[in-house]
Amino acid sequence: MATIKDVAKLSGISRSTVSRVINNHPYVNDEKRSRVKQAMKELGYFPNSSAQRLRGSKTRTIAVLISRIVNPFFSGLVDAMDEVATESGYQLILCNTRGSRERELKYLDLLKTKQVDGVILASVENNWEDIKPYLGYGPIVSCNEYTAQTDIPSFKINHYEATFQAIIHFIKNGRKKIAFCCGDEPIGSDLGVDREKGFFQALSEHDLLFQDEWYFKNVSSVEDGRGVLKRIEKMDDRPDAIFTGSDEVAMGIIAQSQLSSIIVPQDLSVIGFDDQQMSGVLKPGLTTIKQPIKQMGRETMTYMLQILNKQKELAGTEKVLQYKFIKRDT
Amino acid sequence: MATIKDVAKLSGISRSTVSRVINNHPYVNDEKRSRVKQAMKELGYFPNSSAQRLRGSKTRTIAVLISRIVNPFFSGLVDAMDEVATESGYQLILCNTRGSRERELKYLDLLKTKQVDGVILASVENNWEDIKPYLGYGPIVSCNEYTAQTDIPSFKINHYEATFQAIIHFIKNGRKKIAFCCGDEPIGSDLGVDREKGFFQALSEHDLLFQDEWYFKNVSSVEDGRGVLKRIEKMDDRPDAIFTGSDEVAMGIIAQSQLSSIIVPQDLSVIGFDDQQMSGVLKPGLTTIKQPIKQMGRETMTYMLQILNKQKELAGTEKVLQYKFIKRDT
Repeated sequence: MATIKDVAKLSGISRSTVSRVINNHPYVNDEKRSRVKQAMKELGYFPNSSAQRLRGSKTRTIAVLISRIVNPFFSGLVDAMDEVATESGYQLILCNTRGSRERELKYLDLLKTKQVDGVILASVENNWEDIKPYLGYGPIVSCNEYTAQTDIPSFKINHYEATFQAIIHFIKNGRKKIAFCCGDEPIGSDLGVDREKGFFQALSEHDLLFQDEWYFKNVSSVEDGRGVLKRIEKMDDRPDAIFTGSDEVAMGIIAQSQLSSIIVPQDLSVIGFDDQQMSGVLKPGLTTIKQPIKQMGRETMTYMLQILNKQKELAGTEKVLQYKFIKRDT
Repeated sequence: MATIKDVAKLSGISRSTVSRVINNHPYVNDEKRSRVKQAMKELGYFPNSSAQRLRGSKTRTIAVLISRIVNPFFSGLVDAMDEVATESGYQLILCNTRGSRERELKYLDLLKTKQVDGVILASVENNWEDIKPYLGYGPIVSCNEYTAQTDIPSFKINHYEATFQAIIHFIKNGRKKIAFCCGDEPIGSDLGVDREKGFFQALSEHDLLFQDEWYFKNVSSVEDGRGVLKRIEKMDDRPDAIFTGSDEVAMGIIAQSQLSSIIVPQDLSVIGFDDQQMSGVLKPGLTTIKQPIKQMGRETMTYMLQILNKQKELAGTEKVLQYKFIKRDT
């Protein structure tokens, strides 16, 4: 493969001048610059990006940590981030942590080894105290998940309020026995904590009773939702409404109900979370909380690029975006 | 940040020996090796991966080109590839080409600039003659999309046969006026060509007539599917069946039919493509062609890693995987 030496030889221009052209250094006259560029083209010479990085250039690469790309919430978020990144000539390393703390730390190592300029945490598995040291190697911005302990920028909706509103909707429609689902419990995030607080606050304001067996942990997929419905079928004291925390879980519950004696929404009212595309296509239409996925992804990436370009500080700012309660049939 | 010099100073061991430890060179005694590692740990020293790359190391990064991550087909494929890659300590750069030829070439440049070790093409926008020169910089493997012109490994299903079978299914069920949808027309791929051939072959074997207005081009999303149904509504001579080429288009058609006088499947029978998760959740259940997404993603990535580890050759091999016709309600 062609080297700087070859370019120098073909163009008849010194290696140091060729190097200045490659690095867009000023003080090279136009005629020499064009002769060098011509020689580079003829030889098919491309500067080695690893060499450029050693000289302090940036990787123009951002690591985006999510738990699983097959969740439409995350693919939508990544898509929006990617849109902004490519507009500015950046690319994304996709970091599917699959809920593993170990894998999350391995991806954070990309900052240490200078393979990325910054990290966006759209899922969090570790405690903040284990993540914080990585800030010594580059900026970290959080999106969707969050914790009060951090001093980094975060983009999110108010999960306490959204959940509270969903439960009040059930109560206004006469539901009295309301079940609750949550995903895995990322110890480094307050998102799940806030949803749970909103849920129990609404219940207690209306003096509603709760059964332990109506609390479903570690449910996040369509399959998990089917499992939830199967467990409800076997209960002596069945809930008459369920907050699923996820459109996928909600769709699993609805799909499984069609194979059971439980009718949605007559016997069991269901509220999802996210407003994924299919929520409006399904019959019955899914009542859900619409997250501003595109806006959240775009604003997070924009902020990250501004930090990298020294237009913004890496500080503990919070941006709370607006969610929307979407009332359909369930 | 700590340097090799600092590690040498703290451990009391020469820089050249420290360097040998970092690069896992043999001929360093265990005592020195452990003193160096201890010093690296104390100083929080990490070898700069860009420097390692210059010395010929690999990036352990693969670029995966897809058209859009929000399509569950692609997020499923990327997820399967990622599973295999991370098992071997590789990571993915997500390359959302969004159907742009220019962006595709920019992503292929990652091979030239040594930012990735290999490229997987799960979507193709350019002619093979424009892509081929990139083989000079590293391996390219194709997955899903394919063309007869290439001499690289490809993993795919038989789209001619799958489409032919779907149309025969319509015909056996008494349908006579069959419409056809296709996505954008990537000039570098035979996938669309083969589906079209299968479609018209089935029609001609049964002497069925076709109207030009039953050919829907550039449809690939749920929204596009809604548009297709709206156009059918306005036709004087409506089709009684439609091959959508995509579950998302099929779902859009079904969703829109619920707002129209056209009843699926009585008035319009629908066959999707992919068997996405929601296809079995929807009512009516979507009849579709199940692609072996997970297997295709895993086998493609496995082959790529074998090429990089010199266990396989970069040759024009074809692996044709088994699809499955899934009969549901539509």
